[in-house]
Amino acid sequence: MRIIVDAFGGDNAPKEILLGCAMAHEEFGVDIILSGQPRLIEECAKENKIDTGAMEILPASQIMPVSAAPADILKKYKDSSMAVGLRALAQGQGQAFVSAGSTGALVMGATFIIKRIAGIKRTAIGSALPTNSRPVFLIDMGANADCKPEYLHQFALMGDIYMKKILNVECPRVALANIGTEDTKGDTLRLEAFDFMKRAGYNFIGNIEARDIPLGVCDVVVADGFTGNIILKMYEGVAAALMANIKGIFKKNLLTKLSALAVKDGLTDLKNRMDYTEFGGAPLMGVRAPVIKAHGSSNAKAIKNAIGQAKYFAERDLIKSISESL
Amino acid sequence: MRIIVDAFGGDNAPKEILLGCAMAHEEFGVDIILSGQPRLIEECAKENKIDTGAMEILPASQIMPVSAAPADILKKYKDSSMAVGLRALAQGQGQAFVSAGSTGALVMGATFIIKRIAGIKRTAIGSALPTNSRPVFLIDMGANADCKPEYLHQFALMGDIYMKKILNVECPRVALANIGTEDTKGDTLRLEAFDFMKRAGYNFIGNIEARDIPLGVCDVVVADGFTGNIILKMYEGVAAALMANIKGIFKKNLLTKLSALAVKDGLTDLKNRMDYTEFGGAPLMGVRAPVIKAHGSSNAKAIKNAIGQAKYFAERDLIKSISESL
Repeated sequence: MRIIVDAFGGDNAPKEILLGCAMAHEEFGVDIILSGQPRLIEECAKENKIDTGAMEILPASQIMPVSAAPADILKKYKDSSMAVGLRALAQGQGQAFVSAGSTGALVMGATFIIKRIAGIKRTAIGSALPTNSRPVFLIDMGANADCKPEYLHQFALMGDIYMKKILNVECPRVALANIGTEDTKGDTLRLEAFDFMKRAGYNFIGNIEARDIPLGVCDVVVADGFTGNIILKMYEGVAAALMANIKGIFKKNLLTKLSALAVKDGLTDLKNRMDYTEFGGAPLMGVRAPVIKAHGSSNAKAIKNAIGQAKYFAERDLIKSISESL
Repeated sequence: MRIIVDAFGGDNAPKEILLGCAMAHEEFGVDIILSGQPRLIEECAKENKIDTGAMEILPASQIMPVSAAPADILKKYKDSSMAVGLRALAQGQGQAFVSAGSTGALVMGATFIIKRIAGIKRTAIGSALPTNSRPVFLIDMGANADCKPEYLHQFALMGDIYMKKILNVECPRVALANIGTEDTKGDTLRLEAFDFMKRAGYNFIGNIEARDIPLGVCDVVVADGFTGNIILKMYEGVAAALMANIKGIFKKNLLTKLSALAVKDGLTDLKNRMDYTEFGGAPLMGVRAPVIKAHGSSNAKAIKNAIGQAKYFAERDLIKSISESL
């Protein structure tokens, strides 16, 4: 198994990327192909004593800045580490690609360089979110701001396969994120998508209200990219605001500071469970080869997890399952 | 000042409604007009020793169930306590109306019985949400699932006036809920609404990501009713899930149980601050007279707060300000 990794994506590149690759090579026994400027990769590896001896380097002269327009990956930045990595994947030099670079550029690049699975209308980004029981898979979390009902149906179909194949959920409960649980709730997009989904082959359990998502009452949450992104960001924002408040409560006086010691482990554990970056990266669903978007602020461990996820994605042949389900 | 109150709206009617009315009469010096079945009101008042002597009763033979279709308020339930209260408001028998009944029915009834302010395209529901600094006003939180760009601009305009007049914020920072902060982010609706809003008279600060809402970086968050409802419900859901987890951490052993005592007050205070029902009710914006939707599970205190809010709404003449701003 050979995984191609963008050595220059994200805020902590290349150091944390290289460290993560070394960890993944060790832990998962995968071969790593790095895309990026060979000189910079070698210097960084030497400086930080990272063993890149077993890693192949695909030369790429450019680094695509996150501020660049996504479409630039096809023109202005076609020799960037991201574009070069995607082309290598398209040519079969590796079985999967991992990047912590710009989401927009990765979606654009994957769609036009790797191309979509025949029959899939839109590439979507999925993400596992923590709940009070097992994680839930949210799709789409931002690739498609404007959606048609059929796209939502296809997101559901791909989310269903992801949960079955990657998280081993037997009969995933697929729900549509909506503003009420009754069949007649929602805007035009939701009403029309509901009609598509209720006739589909997956286990569609109907509409779900956003307040029930953190309880883990379903396994796949289907949303257009706009709504999915709002859900993801509210998750992050409300949790962060609450945790900051709780920290403040414990800092009040000597007694509260002492009491913090007793629950410190529990709170750290909760914080880790709430941290969706722990789950690895966000898979791009609907393209012809496995592409994983790692969080922009990924550290070595997050990169390692994303590579592990890429390996599963390729091994369990999700692309074939999606293709056959259409 | 005479406030009309739906005696039979919400889960705890009529007892908590009557108690809340008595509290509001005492605290705010307002006169109360109750709509509902006189015999049931009198029996409940007598049984619970609630002094309704100073309250006038508007006879209404029906109670509108929450499960009824919103449009039924205009036909099947036109003699319900909600419909009778709204008609009394339209006829000027009181200066404002408060109900804890069905949101959909109240929006429908207010729109067709009270009618919209000339020039206002859609009635919207606003709600004050807690943040780490002062509350933020979210509009629309669910009345209009499908929106046009101009509606969003009008929601902004009404939210701006609400924050100025009711919460005394001098120059409210108005933001558009979106999936990125750059001007070019979002779906078609957001892109077109942005163009409307940047040319408007209020202090439009641009797009806001959902994750920043709980930080209190703006005073008015503008959203279509679908997105606004998702934001509101995620707020509720994530906070509830986290609080349940934290409760679990404190229950782990004797030491953690003891430590809970030290921070109990702080956590209770946080829980109260996170509880958006504490802010009173949700104002219906855009109709020709003040209508406040109290939470369906309102207790006496929540009803009292909603009546207080209705009083401010009428006193500070928001309707006139909205009308003049168009």
